[in-house]
Amino acid sequence: MPGSPTSQHISKQFDNELEHIRARVLSMGGLVEQQLANALRALTEANIEIGQSVIDEEAKVNSLEIAIDEECTKILARRQPAAGDLRLLVAVAKTLTDLERVGDEAEKIAKMAIELAEKQGPRSYYIGINAMGNHVRKMLHGSLDAFARMDSKAAVTVAGQEPESDEQYIAILRQLITYMMEDPRSIKSSIDAVWVARAMERIGDHSRNICESVIYFVEGKDVRHISIEQMEREVGAK
Amino acid sequence: MPGSPTSQHISKQFDNELEHIRARVLSMGGLVEQQLANALRALTEANIEIGQSVIDEEAKVNSLEIAIDEECTKILARRQPAAGDLRLLVAVAKTLTDLERVGDEAEKIAKMAIELAEKQGPRSYYIGINAMGNHVRKMLHGSLDAFARMDSKAAVTVAGQEPESDEQYIAILRQLITYMMEDPRSIKSSIDAVWVARAMERIGDHSRNICESVIYFVEGKDVRHISIEQMEREVGAK
Repeated sequence: MPGSPTSQHISKQFDNELEHIRARVLSMGGLVEQQLANALRALTEANIEIGQSVIDEEAKVNSLEIAIDEECTKILARRQPAAGDLRLLVAVAKTLTDLERVGDEAEKIAKMAIELAEKQGPRSYYIGINAMGNHVRKMLHGSLDAFARMDSKAAVTVAGQEPESDEQYIAILRQLITYMMEDPRSIKSSIDAVWVARAMERIGDHSRNICESVIYFVEGKDVRHISIEQMEREVGAK
Repeated sequence: MPGSPTSQHISKQFDNELEHIRARVLSMGGLVEQQLANALRALTEANIEIGQSVIDEEAKVNSLEIAIDEECTKILARRQPAAGDLRLLVAVAKTLTDLERVGDEAEKIAKMAIELAEKQGPRSYYIGINAMGNHVRKMLHGSLDAFARMDSKAAVTVAGQEPESDEQYIAILRQLITYMMEDPRSIKSSIDAVWVARAMERIGDHSRNICESVIYFVEGKDVRHISIEQMEREVGAK
């Protein structure tokens, strides 16, 4: 009976469940942001201890993914939501996967930071890598912010920052190749640095994916595999 | 009314819908397998034309992902499935993402194959890369086969082949680093070859993910982030 106290009560409970799952995703997002920040710090400060803490915390990210995913499936089974609620749960499930992968990439960066700290390799390319690290960190933060407010225009803005991380990546790769050619002894540590840049590029990709999930929820449109310009038209963000 | 002709009819229709979506995933899987086979052929035969065909077909994989994903969401909304049916749809949605990413990696291999064919670089490391390519191709095939038969024991077997692709990857990387140190002029093409090996390693990961989705559907257990031994215990495949 729509409008009856009972159905309102049930619907209120359901709202609470959805709110709870959103809050959990955001708290997982906070942990992943922290992991990335620490991985970048381990890299720039050549701090093995902080790098190790990222590796130690990785299991926490994984178990959060599994726990929230399970909660998501339970709500799906129990509430059998339609339309917007269903889209929210789909967006949550996809965002979880992306966050878990960002956690993986942060762990890779931390591992490389430890390797590089132990090798005491050349640091001249760190400026580019730091800039890229800050860029993708901002992207991740922006995507989580768009998720928190379910703001599709903000999501398009953040998604539009992804090409810059691609360019940074290409520039770093070019620089490292020159470096390796000039000094073949630097090849091993340069390859580690290539992985770091690659991991950062993937974090940019995942942040864009999170933005796409936000747009999917808010606008009900699947905007994967399209250009930023098309995306802007889809959400009317001109 | 359970058991009434109407509910049976509806349930039969629902079964057909689920069967249809499974068949579509498998046909997408077939396309992705073909893409990978062509990318590997482009690489070993230094065939630019076949490489280009992989790049041209990539859009088809992307639109299949979107179309099947939409079908999945529609079934979720309309049928509001529970238990096993819900798990099937979740497994389908996750498998779609993995297949699309395998398609991406195949495209990357094809791009690198074109670069390498144009550069006429050294081919001595190709033996390792070919072996790895064949290994992950078999893994992908095995995972789709386990998906087709929804066979969780077969899925565990295929998932257990993933560490081998990691080892192959490390061996190729080591070989390429030696190569670059010996001949710094080979650095650019060697870096391309590193990307190829990396893409193959990721295809191994995605094949394992598909196996995990099969196990999730069949056994109702989330087996991500656990060891193969634990996985074997979970499905009782001793």
